[in-house]
Amino acid sequence: MALRAGDRSQVAMNGLKEKVLTLDTMNPCVRRVEYAVRGPIVLRALELEQELRQGVKKPFTEVIRANIGDAQAMGQKPITFLRQVLALCVHPDLLNSPDFPEDAKRKAERILQACGGHSLGAYSVSSGIQLIREDVARYIERRDGGIPSDPNNIYLSTGASDAIVTVLKLLVAGEGPTRTGVLIPIPQYPLYSAALAELNAVQVDYYLDEERAWALDVAELRRALCQARGHCCPRALCIINPGNPTGQVQARECIEAVIRFAFEERLFLMADEVYQDNVYAEGSQFHSFKKVLTEMGPPYATQQELASFHSVSKGYMGECGFRGGYVEVVNMDPAVQQQMQKLMSVRLCPPVPGQVLLSMVVSPPAPSDPSFAQFQAERQVVLAELAAKAKLTEQVFNEAPGIRCNPVQGAMYSFPRVQLPPRAVQRAQELGLAPDMFFCMSLLEETGICVVPGSGFGQREGTYHFRMTILPPMEKLRPLLEKLSQFHAKFTREYS
Amino acid sequence: MALRAGDRSQVAMNGLKEKVLTLDTMNPCVRRVEYAVRGPIVLRALELEQELRQGVKKPFTEVIRANIGDAQAMGQKPITFLRQVLALCVHPDLLNSPDFPEDAKRKAERILQACGGHSLGAYSVSSGIQLIREDVARYIERRDGGIPSDPNNIYLSTGASDAIVTVLKLLVAGEGPTRTGVLIPIPQYPLYSAALAELNAVQVDYYLDEERAWALDVAELRRALCQARGHCCPRALCIINPGNPTGQVQARECIEAVIRFAFEERLFLMADEVYQDNVYAEGSQFHSFKKVLTEMGPPYATQQELASFHSVSKGYMGECGFRGGYVEVVNMDPAVQQQMQKLMSVRLCPPVPGQVLLSMVVSPPAPSDPSFAQFQAERQVVLAELAAKAKLTEQVFNEAPGIRCNPVQGAMYSFPRVQLPPRAVQRAQELGLAPDMFFCMSLLEETGICVVPGSGFGQREGTYHFRMTILPPMEKLRPLLEKLSQFHAKFTREYS
Ligand SMILES: Cc1ncc(COP(=O)(O)O)c(C=O)c1O
Ligand SMILES: Cc1ncc(COP(=O)(O)O)c(C=O)c1O
Repeated sequence: MALRAGDRSQVAMNGLKEKVLTLDTMNPCVRRVEYAVRGPIVLRALELEQELRQGVKKPFTEVIRANIGDAQAMGQKPITFLRQVLALCVHPDLLNSPDFPEDAKRKAERILQACGGHSLGAYSVSSGIQLIREDVARYIERRDGGIPSDPNNIYLSTGASDAIVTVLKLLVAGEGPTRTGVLIPIPQYPLYSAALAELNAVQVDYYLDEERAWALDVAELRRALCQARGHCCPRALCIINPGNPTGQVQARECIEAVIRFAFEERLFLMADEVYQDNVYAEGSQFHSFKKVLTEMGPPYATQQELASFHSVSKGYMGECGFRGGYVEVVNMDPAVQQQMQKLMSVRLCPPVPGQVLLSMVVSPPAPSDPSFAQFQAERQVVLAELAAKAKLTEQVFNEAPGIRCNPVQGAMYSFPRVQLPPRAVQRAQELGLAPDMFFCMSLLEETGICVVPGSGFGQREGTYHFRMTILPPMEKLRPLLEKLSQFHAKFTREYS
Repeated sequence: MALRAGDRSQVAMNGLKEKVLTLDTMNPCVRRVEYAVRGPIVLRALELEQELRQGVKKPFTEVIRANIGDAQAMGQKPITFLRQVLALCVHPDLLNSPDFPEDAKRKAERILQACGGHSLGAYSVSSGIQLIREDVARYIERRDGGIPSDPNNIYLSTGASDAIVTVLKLLVAGEGPTRTGVLIPIPQYPLYSAALAELNAVQVDYYLDEERAWALDVAELRRALCQARGHCCPRALCIINPGNPTGQVQARECIEAVIRFAFEERLFLMADEVYQDNVYAEGSQFHSFKKVLTEMGPPYATQQELASFHSVSKGYMGECGFRGGYVEVVNMDPAVQQQMQKLMSVRLCPPVPGQVLLSMVVSPPAPSDPSFAQFQAERQVVLAELAAKAKLTEQVFNEAPGIRCNPVQGAMYSFPRVQLPPRAVQRAQELGLAPDMFFCMSLLEETGICVVPGSGFGQREGTYHFRMTILPPMEKLRPLLEKLSQFHAKFTREYS
């Protein structure tokens, strides 16, 4: 591998050395990482946008990026109160301005008091500003009907992504047959597969049941676990509820069954609950794993290990760019918790503006506050529109022959199943593409609509899907859905 | 390891299961991580602060956290222009306010135009907002006397920490004797040792020469490399310039020699240049690795791989809490660069407010702009004070018997060497502490001054140091330095 001195000087003579860092010499785990949400289809979308700007003629006038759950990129306005408080914190001279409501000023002053040097520009403690951790704990208590939450079990993070990867890092150990396995849903949010690849852990797939609106079935968990036990050491179970990309909201009984299963089988539970405020369907309700686990009493309440994740990127606020989030750990070994704290301290601290936004999300204006009415109204508009868009999406797709879409009970996506004609599948194979990637690429080239192929999230062999966010504004969403359905019909005719 | 079914039900009967995640089962690489800057001494400082608040009597009235380079935590005021622009971006209603200068509004509008949905709340592309990458490239060109910089080689990050870890991740590969080795200076900034431990790479120490003001000596690099080649595969060389914790600024000839060495020995260069604006000593000047490498011409300019890091946390702005930074890569294999881009995309994007601040740092007000005079004045005050504090620190410490302090040519720290009497060393060993940890803990308990023991950064066997930031305001710094010197004298008497 290493060149000997003689070879080396020869290479030097013709003036060219091989690079130190190449595909062959780089970290093989990183090479194995895949991340479809920002993969080739998105790169092509960026190119198309550039071509449009340069005046290249296309069969469409704009690229619509329906590939990612990014509300404000889709035109959603920020919640006024959140931005008022943050602006005050960023530039405290504004505390003297008459243009800001009293409660926003009070919040900002309270937060600045809790910052080093009374400034957002200081590093915070690595686990996040203590005051905000306390606000989060109180929020969780309200959410869970009074079940206690300890601020010392809450760690603020750089978006939920950061906290999820941190907890996975703790769990990874072993080699060969003792290598850590982690159960993740299929379809999944590809942060999980990417992080597991990078950490060289074993991804253990359990399939959600498309026929039953993407329900999670404990029998399937058991199948996946038993099969995995042959070649790795499964130690954690990830759940995404409400589901991304699948949009289901889990029933309470289902959560209970999952907790019993995890306890029996000695699995650390990771509950990705970043869409906890995004529940739309009649009869659906969000139940936190923490609440259900606690209400089940001992031994679950006292022993089952759990990490629950939340974010400022989703919900009604959609403040993705600020990278705020948190994890609450339950029943975690205190010594491991210390290790987690140490690990977080290496990166110094999560971004303080994201912490500030999180503090607003968990302690919004109270009914007696001057900002309450406007805050509530803005929040309600966003959530009501999302509910309407969820319904519309399901409805339009299900009217299209060859497309079948489960109800979007929650989160921000539909994940419809599409029939692709055999000749299209064959053509895709000739091109070396997954059939649904071929479909999505064709869609993008012809309509400018950017969605992500199901293969990026995982799906049962021989089925094809795509994920589309429901976030575009109502007046754009309906034509978008119709255009997409029409393109599918045309594509089907073309390859039949 | 795993319990059999019989054992397991027995454990369940007495109601107690072992935790899934324990010190024994967790990631052993994470366990090995150490991070002194926020280690036990800082935890103790936090406790002491709490005790003071609770009215517990102490021989001091406040804890002074001189353990970390956090300017605003030490009372430094943010640069007005930076915060004005950021506030406008956070809360664009303010664009109508008469209280903001025109150029701040122009900057804010330009940035908002470049954001998804014209909002900081949208995810940016993973490598950072294109416009800001272009601003960074132009900044680098100005800094380096016109040497071109390509925005496509610039990646914005969550503080420099994030980018440093990302590049290290790419480099890590192999097992046993082919495991990647990375050369780092001793003393070092402990992010490096922590990241290498976490990634299971081999840390290869090269010692800076304390007798020659912490100079970097190529003979020592060669010694370290040769020794390491016996048991690992050294593939990268990290340099911190200006140095943390050591405060030296490298001479141009030294940088040239390092580059020749790296090229000869086929090492990827990582230049940590986060203190590039923090140079105080007469005759010292910052030379970027990129500039020197380019001016050396081929084959160095055309082939030597380099990553250079910068941050908004240091310099004159000290905006640590916002977590902004960037890496510029030079001569990196394009295929590897794609892999890096992919890896970054898994975390979605760096915090947008940090990107905005970075954009101000790299394109500050021009002389014709209304904010220029104030901006320049504020910047100059900070830098002039830092220069004065650097000088004062060196001077006071060198007047104290048993303390010897190299000139603080740059960065934000002094790293004085302290003589500790044999009986103190012995007492420390009895307590299971490193001797300088024992010294620093005693200092903290008796004076409230929090500094970090040299053992947290690495030092030659048998020598003892501590790191203290020079950031406290002038009126606090002098008494602090004197108190510390006096304590050392008393400590020496006590244990002699
Ligand atoms: C299920 C799920 N988890 C976590 C995340 C990460 O979000 P963030 O890091 O922005 O908080 C996302 C983002 O789309 C998600 O959909
Ligand atoms: C040498 C050096 N590199 C990198 C960093 C990381 O800084 P940040 O992640 O805040 O940009 C620091 C912080 O103290 C440092 O001293």
